[in-house]
Amino acid sequence: MASHFADRLCKAVGSKKTPLTVGLDPVYSRLPAAIRQRKESGGENDAAAEIDAIFEFCTKVLRIVAPLVPAVKLNIGFFERYLWDGIECYCSLITEAEDLGLEIIGDVKRGDIGHTAESYAKAHLQNPELSGLDDVLAPDAITINGFAGTDGILPFADTADKNGKGIFVWVRASNPSAADIQDFADAAGEKMYEKLAKAVAEIANQTHRTGVSGYSNVGMVIGGTSGEQTTALREKYGKIIFLVPGFGSQGATAADCLRFCKPDGTGALINASRSIIYAYENEKYSQQYGDNWEKCIEQAVADAKIELAKAAQ
Amino acid sequence: MASHFADRLCKAVGSKKTPLTVGLDPVYSRLPAAIRQRKESGGENDAAAEIDAIFEFCTKVLRIVAPLVPAVKLNIGFFERYLWDGIECYCSLITEAEDLGLEIIGDVKRGDIGHTAESYAKAHLQNPELSGLDDVLAPDAITINGFAGTDGILPFADTADKNGKGIFVWVRASNPSAADIQDFADAAGEKMYEKLAKAVAEIANQTHRTGVSGYSNVGMVIGGTSGEQTTALREKYGKIIFLVPGFGSQGATAADCLRFCKPDGTGALINASRSIIYAYENEKYSQQYGDNWEKCIEQAVADAKIELAKAAQ
Repeated sequence: MASHFADRLCKAVGSKKTPLTVGLDPVYSRLPAAIRQRKESGGENDAAAEIDAIFEFCTKVLRIVAPLVPAVKLNIGFFERYLWDGIECYCSLITEAEDLGLEIIGDVKRGDIGHTAESYAKAHLQNPELSGLDDVLAPDAITINGFAGTDGILPFADTADKNGKGIFVWVRASNPSAADIQDFADAAGEKMYEKLAKAVAEIANQTHRTGVSGYSNVGMVIGGTSGEQTTALREKYGKIIFLVPGFGSQGATAADCLRFCKPDGTGALINASRSIIYAYENEKYSQQYGDNWEKCIEQAVADAKIELAKAAQ
Repeated sequence: MASHFADRLCKAVGSKKTPLTVGLDPVYSRLPAAIRQRKESGGENDAAAEIDAIFEFCTKVLRIVAPLVPAVKLNIGFFERYLWDGIECYCSLITEAEDLGLEIIGDVKRGDIGHTAESYAKAHLQNPELSGLDDVLAPDAITINGFAGTDGILPFADTADKNGKGIFVWVRASNPSAADIQDFADAAGEKMYEKLAKAVAEIANQTHRTGVSGYSNVGMVIGGTSGEQTTALREKYGKIIFLVPGFGSQGATAADCLRFCKPDGTGALINASRSIIYAYENEKYSQQYGDNWEKCIEQAVADAKIELAKAAQ
């Protein structure tokens, strides 16, 4: 039987001694020049050259970060631009990350109802059993959109459960206009995101979804810059692992993000994407390491870990 | 310059004399036995046999329905199970449908913020310009998830605008638990879906998004079974085209769905998926047409059109 996602994750966080996760949002035009130039002169068509370059870049990033962080987040939105080639690349990177011992979160934000939700869940949370695809792995967990409420979430939660996988339901975003919808409050002052969090927690708290770590395989995504208000969710929902995007480029500080960890440092994954994978664009690193973009990324991960560790003291 | 999506759609609805659209949610195990058997004996691996069968089935369905309805809705959730092969199939079906003169709605329910929303928008609303993918077409419109509010919607709306495409923002679902989140009401009694509809309408009503038909290229998805309450949206938002799923198998009646049409019959697309594409499972048709599954589907479309036309009188 597959092990429990939350337990694997807690073990990985413990062994890497950090809640930091690295997000891969690869944009071709921002890749290191050395990778782009080599691919462009390879005689391939543009789409193949770009996706090959993205694969090479991401593979190298995975190798750099694997000894340092417990998990990576692959944002499928940046792969879908390349249609089927993009999806094949996304799947190959899951295998690479798995071979490197990383926990893998597919940031796919899927959400629908009924049969469609079931079909998305099978696509993204179940290793394919069909011959021809049977060497493909599904990620350890995915992000989902819970807009349709409990019965839009359950097909994902149940499929995750059966397969030793997990889900993170998007509860509160960090963009400015998210407040218009998600902070919408009823007469008693309860906000829409709190209502959604309650629905997610009801599912997450079901005994069979809890691992020996005490955490559920159903978690929540909460933007790091979503403001003080969301801190209450940590106190309220002890079994929840929070996936907190926005550390770094989106403007969330270490302290903003650490609100979602328990005092023992468990209970949250703090994700940085662009500030890490494009560290070579940052003078702080490029002045020190020049064209050695891999060293820039490695140092940015080390720095982010130290920043989080210091803020946690 | 590309023509305006809403204008193309209105023209198609006028020429086919129906707001009915057919949704393709293909599930391999439900395909006609004749198609499944032929593919299974072809010596291919399972994944390739299944997706080839789905492609054959969907292509035939498109040919049957093209003379009868203005548009089709392709549900990407049923293709993603086959990973890259599924996406290639989905893209090929868009080309097939385009060649048949159909308007094509990609039911993808994507939603995210910032750079990710932009990347999804480029993936799903822009014909690829990269060599190697430049014979691929994006659908005429897609469904999106507006959970993140205005700045999660705008990247999709703007990309659609630039490319003569459209979007339908999911405003009110039809599943039972949708009410918990979407009917959540503030002190003044305004519901969350109404708040979201207002945000969508503000974008939709911008002058440059309106076609000569008077309709915007930004529409809304409202479940047919979402109850009487949602009817007010039709009166309130004159420029909106509503995409109304749930006619047939999901239990919405013709009258439930026609609430979203204006008195002149424009302003809504009424979608039936399983009740049409699996019509051969329905004794009403199989007793009459036997193994001729194509005839069953053709008759189901004709019957659904008549049902809508009668209810509209």
